[in-house]
Amino acid sequence: MESWANLDFHLDLSGPGGLRHRLTASLREAVRSARLPPGTRLPASRSLAADLGIARNTVAEAYAELVAEGWLTARQGSGTVVAQRVEPPPPKTRRVIGPAVQFDLSESAPDVTEFPRTEWIRSTRRALTAAPAEAFGPGDPQGRIELRTALAEYLARARGVRADPERIVVCSGFADGIRMFNRLLKPPVVVEEYGLQFHQSLWTATEPLLVDEHGANTEQLPDDRRAVVLTPAHQFPLGGPLHPRRRASAVEWARRVGGVVLEDDYDGEFRYDRQPVGAVQGLDPEHVVYLGTSSKALSPALRIAWMVLPDRFVDPILALKTDREQYISMLDQLTLADFLECGAYDSHVRRMRLEYQRRRDRLVEAVSPYVKVSGIAAGMHAVLETPHDEAIVQMARERGIEVSPLSWFRHEQSDDDRTGIVISFGQPAFPRALPLFTEVLAACC
Amino acid sequence: MESWANLDFHLDLSGPGGLRHRLTASLREAVRSARLPPGTRLPASRSLAADLGIARNTVAEAYAELVAEGWLTARQGSGTVVAQRVEPPPPKTRRVIGPAVQFDLSESAPDVTEFPRTEWIRSTRRALTAAPAEAFGPGDPQGRIELRTALAEYLARARGVRADPERIVVCSGFADGIRMFNRLLKPPVVVEEYGLQFHQSLWTATEPLLVDEHGANTEQLPDDRRAVVLTPAHQFPLGGPLHPRRRASAVEWARRVGGVVLEDDYDGEFRYDRQPVGAVQGLDPEHVVYLGTSSKALSPALRIAWMVLPDRFVDPILALKTDREQYISMLDQLTLADFLECGAYDSHVRRMRLEYQRRRDRLVEAVSPYVKVSGIAAGMHAVLETPHDEAIVQMARERGIEVSPLSWFRHEQSDDDRTGIVISFGQPAFPRALPLFTEVLAACC
Repeated sequence: MESWANLDFHLDLSGPGGLRHRLTASLREAVRSARLPPGTRLPASRSLAADLGIARNTVAEAYAELVAEGWLTARQGSGTVVAQRVEPPPPKTRRVIGPAVQFDLSESAPDVTEFPRTEWIRSTRRALTAAPAEAFGPGDPQGRIELRTALAEYLARARGVRADPERIVVCSGFADGIRMFNRLLKPPVVVEEYGLQFHQSLWTATEPLLVDEHGANTEQLPDDRRAVVLTPAHQFPLGGPLHPRRRASAVEWARRVGGVVLEDDYDGEFRYDRQPVGAVQGLDPEHVVYLGTSSKALSPALRIAWMVLPDRFVDPILALKTDREQYISMLDQLTLADFLECGAYDSHVRRMRLEYQRRRDRLVEAVSPYVKVSGIAAGMHAVLETPHDEAIVQMARERGIEVSPLSWFRHEQSDDDRTGIVISFGQPAFPRALPLFTEVLAACC
Repeated sequence: MESWANLDFHLDLSGPGGLRHRLTASLREAVRSARLPPGTRLPASRSLAADLGIARNTVAEAYAELVAEGWLTARQGSGTVVAQRVEPPPPKTRRVIGPAVQFDLSESAPDVTEFPRTEWIRSTRRALTAAPAEAFGPGDPQGRIELRTALAEYLARARGVRADPERIVVCSGFADGIRMFNRLLKPPVVVEEYGLQFHQSLWTATEPLLVDEHGANTEQLPDDRRAVVLTPAHQFPLGGPLHPRRRASAVEWARRVGGVVLEDDYDGEFRYDRQPVGAVQGLDPEHVVYLGTSSKALSPALRIAWMVLPDRFVDPILALKTDREQYISMLDQLTLADFLECGAYDSHVRRMRLEYQRRRDRLVEAVSPYVKVSGIAAGMHAVLETPHDEAIVQMARERGIEVSPLSWFRHEQSDDDRTGIVISFGQPAFPRALPLFTEVLAACC
């Protein structure tokens, strides 16, 4: 099948959740109701993505999810096809194409138009000119020593992390780190009741921990669990910092039960009202795994993240990493090491901090007649405390703006009922989208 | 435990197989015989590696294998520890440390001292200056369109591949590709009876195919299998090309059974006696997956490889890739695209072709009084037809030279009994090691 148009039925992209979630739900419903009968060959992801005006990525993810659930099959020789199922009800036909997304503010991401190209090119030249020949060989699965050394210095200075280069492992992203720890830790892993669903889904099993105005309630960490994932500097997505008492409780719990805290410090450098609070890892490097990334401060195109590990995890993680043979470009690692050491990383963070602070101020000013902005002045996203959310998300979508309802980040076992809108102000589209989005709030709140 | 010395027993690194294999075997035997009693904490991989004068990588791989086999445990809180087992026999004590490796010629790898730094830096500058802003965003899991376009042109021209950028998926290495196909193809997968054990171990199950003087015997491909992995341009490691009749048979088989040929074209550009034979993929792009890499022609530090897929595999592979979120650095992809387009890739391949040809000629000249060199004039490694191999490998090791016995590459279900030595002449250490190695041959053959 070359185009969705041939399917001749309604693809309803309205409803709660992000684009991918809605597309998945809509396709699932179409299969369940046999509007897409067994054996139907779905359009190629690029063609469906083009028809709907969304990223091919989103379509591929939806297909993958439905394959995993058994609704679709994606085996050799047949493309993506609706699985054979029993008792299909008679098909109905309708046809509408969802509206195209103009401004995607649904993901907390940096403004990539600000990537420091000149400084990066300069660091590439310096790093590759000075590199020893072995740097062009297959390399160390742990990561280049130059990068680990530069990170140890930077993380100690900027984030209060107690880091030894021998304890640092370079990986391709937070997801990469989760996958490795998922093989080392006994499920279920405790996670904050609000967070990235994508990350939660990488664990074999998770259990939610309540989050209130002091952050995740680490005083309630169960003694029969051994691992908790926290976002202490800036709860994602709610936006609060973890209270000092709760920070101490988390570490005390880990010591008491012989467990570990996985500290996701995704945007720890970006605090606008005061100096950022240091990493929890500084309290007890033997019970906290610190996870950081270049994706927020610099660019997700690099695919470079890092873990600072308690000693007992170094060998198990290296064994897994070696086994997977998924190393990170050694050339980028050398360049990033130079970029950190010459001060370009700090300058870029400083510059972007001012820029994001300005944008957050604009957001607060624009929306304050209608809603309260919760959380601290930090990061690249904010939560608007709206009395309801799905209608707002739907109205925004009709104007080409994609934002996320808070419910989209809620753990399935949580019975919290907060409502809100999560909006990213890091995206380059933000300034243009803000006036349009404010009109939506004016109409709804 | 801080050092191997504290273990106070003999670590015997002699015997067949590569270093990793021997270390694994030796540790396994030590656990089995309880010379390493249950609960013993092993030294950290870096400390053992330093004691033995081998790569940390090798130690970490050995640990990982023994964890997978259940001899060791690597769980939280305990480092790498000998697993609890029943009936340990009484421990014996001995102690010897294996010899250090000076010249590692055991892996077919390019001479990384020749990496074209200046040209690469130039391409980085051009590519990053010209890139659109979205290039610094999270990017397309399929790979940058600039790189896929450049690869399509290059592969058609240099390797006779029928490539459409929409059919190309960028991945981090051949292992990455195997892992994805392992989730799509029904086991067992047919593999050549000689090949990289590391690659074979990534498949759920494999079955060997005989290899003779015409290459893999594709006329014997069983009708009840659906996938075969071949190295048609230059059988790895035996070194022969796949006979034209066998190339045709492979494709006919795939058509007949609805199967697929996975064509590993790892060093297809490097043929010295004539123009390289084009890829089998050109015969039937709908039944052959073409796999290529920058690791041999340029550098394994880049971690960039590519697959050219039959249409029916594009969506399933993209779904898997998206799900894993293991993208390749977008900046390196842009740089490689420029590097290909400006002709620097071709120049580098041409230059290295001459260099490797010279080295192969030197190898043939040096060893021909003692042994025959089999296979075509191609690639970065050769097989010496020795009447036995383990004694030669052992003698070479005593002089600090690491080469591999052919048996190390043999499929466990193969009952072939060829002997030989696999030696890499791509490694920078080759010129210095050759005279020493020739002395070993003079003494043994």
